[in-house]
Amino acid sequence: MAPKRADVAIVMGSQSDWATMKCAAEVLDELGVSYEARIVSAHRTPDRLHQFGKTAHEQGFKVVVAGAGGAAHLPGMIAALTHLPVLGVPVKSKALKGLDSLLSIVQMPAGVPTGTLAIGEPGATNAGLLAAAILALSDEGLSQRLRDWRAARTAAVGEVPED
Amino acid sequence: MAPKRADVAIVMGSQSDWATMKCAAEVLDELGVSYEARIVSAHRTPDRLHQFGKTAHEQGFKVVVAGAGGAAHLPGMIAALTHLPVLGVPVKSKALKGLDSLLSIVQMPAGVPTGTLAIGEPGATNAGLLAAAILALSDEGLSQRLRDWRAARTAAVGEVPED
Amino acid sequence: MAPKRADVAIVMGSQSDWATMKCAAEVLDELGVSYEARIVSAHRTPDRLHQFGKTAHEQGFKVVVAGAGGAAHLPGMIAALTHLPVLGVPVKSKALKGLDSLLSIVQMPAGVPTGTLAIGEPGATNAGLLAAAILALSDEGLSQRLRDWRAARTAAVGEVPED
Amino acid sequence: MAPKRADVAIVMGSQSDWATMKCAAEVLDELGVSYEARIVSAHRTPDRLHQFGKTAHEQGFKVVVAGAGGAAHLPGMIAALTHLPVLGVPVKSKALKGLDSLLSIVQMPAGVPTGTLAIGEPGATNAGLLAAAILALSDEGLSQRLRDWRAARTAAVGEVPED
Amino acid sequence: MAPKRADVAIVMGSQSDWATMKCAAEVLDELGVSYEARIVSAHRTPDRLHQFGKTAHEQGFKVVVAGAGGAAHLPGMIAALTHLPVLGVPVKSKALKGLDSLLSIVQMPAGVPTGTLAIGEPGATNAGLLAAAILALSDEGLSQRLRDWRAARTAAVGEVPED
Amino acid sequence: MAPKRADVAIVMGSQSDWATMKCAAEVLDELGVSYEARIVSAHRTPDRLHQFGKTAHEQGFKVVVAGAGGAAHLPGMIAALTHLPVLGVPVKSKALKGLDSLLSIVQMPAGVPTGTLAIGEPGATNAGLLAAAILALSDEGLSQRLRDWRAARTAAVGEVPED
Amino acid sequence: MAPKRADVAIVMGSQSDWATMKCAAEVLDELGVSYEARIVSAHRTPDRLHQFGKTAHEQGFKVVVAGAGGAAHLPGMIAALTHLPVLGVPVKSKALKGLDSLLSIVQMPAGVPTGTLAIGEPGATNAGLLAAAILALSDEGLSQRLRDWRAARTAAVGEVPED
Amino acid sequence: MAPKRADVAIVMGSQSDWATMKCAAEVLDELGVSYEARIVSAHRTPDRLHQFGKTAHEQGFKVVVAGAGGAAHLPGMIAALTHLPVLGVPVKSKALKGLDSLLSIVQMPAGVPTGTLAIGEPGATNAGLLAAAILALSDEGLSQRLRDWRAARTAAVGEVPED
Repeated sequence: MAPKRADVAIVMGSQSDWATMKCAAEVLDELGVSYEARIVSAHRTPDRLHQFGKTAHEQGFKVVVAGAGGAAHLPGMIAALTHLPVLGVPVKSKALKGLDSLLSIVQMPAGVPTGTLAIGEPGATNAGLLAAAILALSDEGLSQRLRDWRAARTAAVGEVPED
Repeated sequence: MAPKRADVAIVMGSQSDWATMKCAAEVLDELGVSYEARIVSAHRTPDRLHQFGKTAHEQGFKVVVAGAGGAAHLPGMIAALTHLPVLGVPVKSKALKGLDSLLSIVQMPAGVPTGTLAIGEPGATNAGLLAAAILALSDEGLSQRLRDWRAARTAAVGEVPED
Repeated sequence: MAPKRADVAIVMGSQSDWATMKCAAEVLDELGVSYEARIVSAHRTPDRLHQFGKTAHEQGFKVVVAGAGGAAHLPGMIAALTHLPVLGVPVKSKALKGLDSLLSIVQMPAGVPTGTLAIGEPGATNAGLLAAAILALSDEGLSQRLRDWRAARTAAVGEVPED
Repeated sequence: MAPKRADVAIVMGSQSDWATMKCAAEVLDELGVSYEARIVSAHRTPDRLHQFGKTAHEQGFKVVVAGAGGAAHLPGMIAALTHLPVLGVPVKSKALKGLDSLLSIVQMPAGVPTGTLAIGEPGATNAGLLAAAILALSDEGLSQRLRDWRAARTAAVGEVPED
Repeated sequence: MAPKRADVAIVMGSQSDWATMKCAAEVLDELGVSYEARIVSAHRTPDRLHQFGKTAHEQGFKVVVAGAGGAAHLPGMIAALTHLPVLGVPVKSKALKGLDSLLSIVQMPAGVPTGTLAIGEPGATNAGLLAAAILALSDEGLSQRLRDWRAARTAAVGEVPED
Repeated sequence: MAPKRADVAIVMGSQSDWATMKCAAEVLDELGVSYEARIVSAHRTPDRLHQFGKTAHEQGFKVVVAGAGGAAHLPGMIAALTHLPVLGVPVKSKALKGLDSLLSIVQMPAGVPTGTLAIGEPGATNAGLLAAAILALSDEGLSQRLRDWRAARTAAVGEVPED
Repeated sequence: MAPKRADVAIVMGSQSDWATMKCAAEVLDELGVSYEARIVSAHRTPDRLHQFGKTAHEQGFKVVVAGAGGAAHLPGMIAALTHLPVLGVPVKSKALKGLDSLLSIVQMPAGVPTGTLAIGEPGATNAGLLAAAILALSDEGLSQRLRDWRAARTAAVGEVPED
Repeated sequence: MAPKRADVAIVMGSQSDWATMKCAAEVLDELGVSYEARIVSAHRTPDRLHQFGKTAHEQGFKVVVAGAGGAAHLPGMIAALTHLPVLGVPVKSKALKGLDSLLSIVQMPAGVPTGTLAIGEPGATNAGLLAAAILALSDEGLSQRLRDWRAARTAAVGEVPED
């Protein structure tokens, strides 16, 4: 029997996106959620994209987190190829600071959603958290870990600012 | 025993947002997903917001779809109050056409995600679809209906444009 | 022997884009350039997109003109799948007036170009003209017709404005 | 009898906002206006936010200065919870340079105002000054100090630029 | 003895701004706050502006609400001339929909604040409300009326959307 | 008899603007045009502004070059106070990179023009050049110097780029 | 001897720009300034543009007012060809409402200025006024008419808004 | 007989643009496409521009790649002067990061197309690639080299990200 795959696929358009997308990996590690990180370039490896999108469900993934920058087509194209929930992370671009990435990911037409997070690292962290929240709907242990994680963050907020 | 509540809460900041948000309701109806639509104004009814966010999980909701326009705080504030997945719909605003709504919803800080959809009606439809995709992870019947819905839409795309 | 296909493929994401994209068809008609217009939705018909992009060259097309709106992935995804020149037309979108379409099409990463034209109808006309200019490099007759078309337009510019 | 609280509450979403918000504190110090600086995160400490907003008036505050960045919900949510005047400072964000912060704070719907100042440090200084101007309406001594402060600044403007 | 003047000055750059600014007047009427509405054009009547700004305090005004569109200099210039609190309303402009008005009003340099409200009618209503909140700090009756106004608005929010 | 004043007034809102505005001074020096540089802050020295605008003509100035950043009111307010030609330079601002400065200067209402140049140093240089072009209309020597300056620049453009 | 030409050339890229640019003509008529209106398309009639720019000075023009929309190259290209003062009017464009026109005209590199006015009709009126202010430097009669025109406008501003 | 000229002209507005535009040269070198790089400033050398545009075809060029920044008129003006295909590269500008360059190049009116690429270096690389794709339509060897180049890039995409 084939080994069980990870629950979350973290895909990105290029090696350079990993600096951003590893924030998603880190929070999934903290929450004990299994994931695989892969490079799938919509533009340089369209066959890999097509193959990945078509088989993501069969591979056992439950949620796809996809990050890309500029004319960021990866999240939306995966969403076109799978019925799994797809979360998009707009990677900050050089000239337009991620505004192009954001609009390319979020402005999907009716019928093919990508749940889009903030530009850059906060968005990658949040994509991990939202993936966890989705998986927690049918995993009480994860749900508790997620609530603990949030409670710890709440508790860590100081009362007054310090110089 | 209390009757089971709906799986999806569709909340919006005002009555006028319903023209947009009913697109979410319509697609959930088509997919056979239960939902409740409510008005929860972050700014006019902050207590209701607090109460709703705190108890959404206990009320049996699994996914929250929240729409608001302008300085759109509803999705993010609900996300701060619940560990359920929250999907945000930027309602088109009068002066800035929803750009303010979009940025107010999507640019959440690390720690509190809102999965954001497109501005306006397409975004509301897609929030419904993404909610269904999330619920379908543990509901094979829904998963099949979602795939059928998508297949039907694919089949409906003509080959050539017509005048 | 299979009949020769058209030189230019005009593809668009949906029937509604035809109102814009027919401006490309009209100018190609005026210039005597053969074309075929097709609906290929990146998001609703990703297999058709993949198939089209992979075989555009074999089908005999020389230039692809692709129009889409919002998170407009069609031009860039075709460019990822073919080595033919791809020209992109940002269709005017409802909320953001085509700014999202423009950035989604033009901001392609190094390696996969789309030659992008203006938002809306002027862009579609110009995509047709640029396709013709490309084909005219190896078609002296077309080159002459293009120059005549341009000369006629120049001649039609009045000297003084009229109320 | 409980000691009198400060007149101005300076609240901010996170420790990192203090680099900006201390400009408000500094000008209040210069003008002899009492204040308290606190961290209240709309997203990480929503209960603290709710509690603060509900009791700001009882705590004796007269004006609230609130700063936040990105999807900046803090000023507007406090304004929803108190009838005190709320002044908002858009903290400069990493990707979009505070444009998201500005729109999230200023574009409030009719009924719940936040008086919004400029992005970043000038805005924080000005929030302090505007708070002082408000308090000066019923404090002639403060009114005189504010006029003196302004006169000194006017007097400090050189006549000619110097290399 | 000269009759007491109104507490709030509502000034605007032109007659056409009144369509927006009367929303401020209406809410002040509802709250029983006295006001005077005047046209003061920064660009066409700079002497009147100078005179108004210099004497606003002496005329007995306590808060100035100023609205203007495009290169909107009125609120900031009044703020430069008076130590009274000045609230700015960006009137929606024809080409840029009030984005120019907003930036011209809100991005004041350190030293001269304008508390800026939302673009257009909601901003004008909110300028009236914020002026009332400021005056309510030393007028318990107004404070109660303001709280009642807000409570009535809260009570008017329906529970569920209606078609 | 009073000594003749300079032909061009270069005014700016603060000392820090001089880094930009000295580009105007430098090109006027090159062209042999007399100028005076002064600090006139619309917001900190509104009386000086009023006085300057009212008397610029009497002081013998023929053209006013005014630079400011952020909510940049200086050029437009001078234009409201004098019938001399006023040229505006949007100084690059910290958060919004001069987009706010540009819109605050250029979007003047019908009746009070400011001839606006590019953001930052190129704009300051060009304000000097445009002032010279205006003065050259009645100064043949200056006209010749301006043409020589331009010809020299044209001649300095290399044929091919160099690494 | 050749008849004297007009002082101001009003040029525009197309017949459709006349709806905007006639505002410049109207105010010049009111002020008794001679002008000629011509269509010179940078893109459709580049030879006419070149010819016009090269000879504008010889034709007796003193100031050029140029309006164009979208990728608006006309003002800047004329400025490259003449040493006369060139004023640019960004005509409101269909998709981007003149933001493209504005940036295409105002963001000229150091060395070749265009004095840019507001987007649309107010900008055209103001281009006429600024041209008049420039000509008035050496025409005392015009200077007086301009001052009278401004004074009449000032006098026409009502004191209070009317419903 | 005159020696055959290069197939591609790479023109740019100034020496400083070469840092960007050499990316086009580099990829043409890799693909074995002949090119000439020249400085042609629309604003400083309008005669050279006119001459270049008029004779580009006669000089034997088949495709023109033109880069410029800010109010970037070079690509569109060349397109107005030649019937050859013109590709435009928006060079990143200092204040607005190339948004001005992009809009100045892409928003051409119907009749005169510029195929526009991304802002900055990726756009320059892609302009070279698109020029090659155009030339490859009648050059089977180049077509094969282009396909090999693309295949090599596809093969170089790793499967997983590396720290």
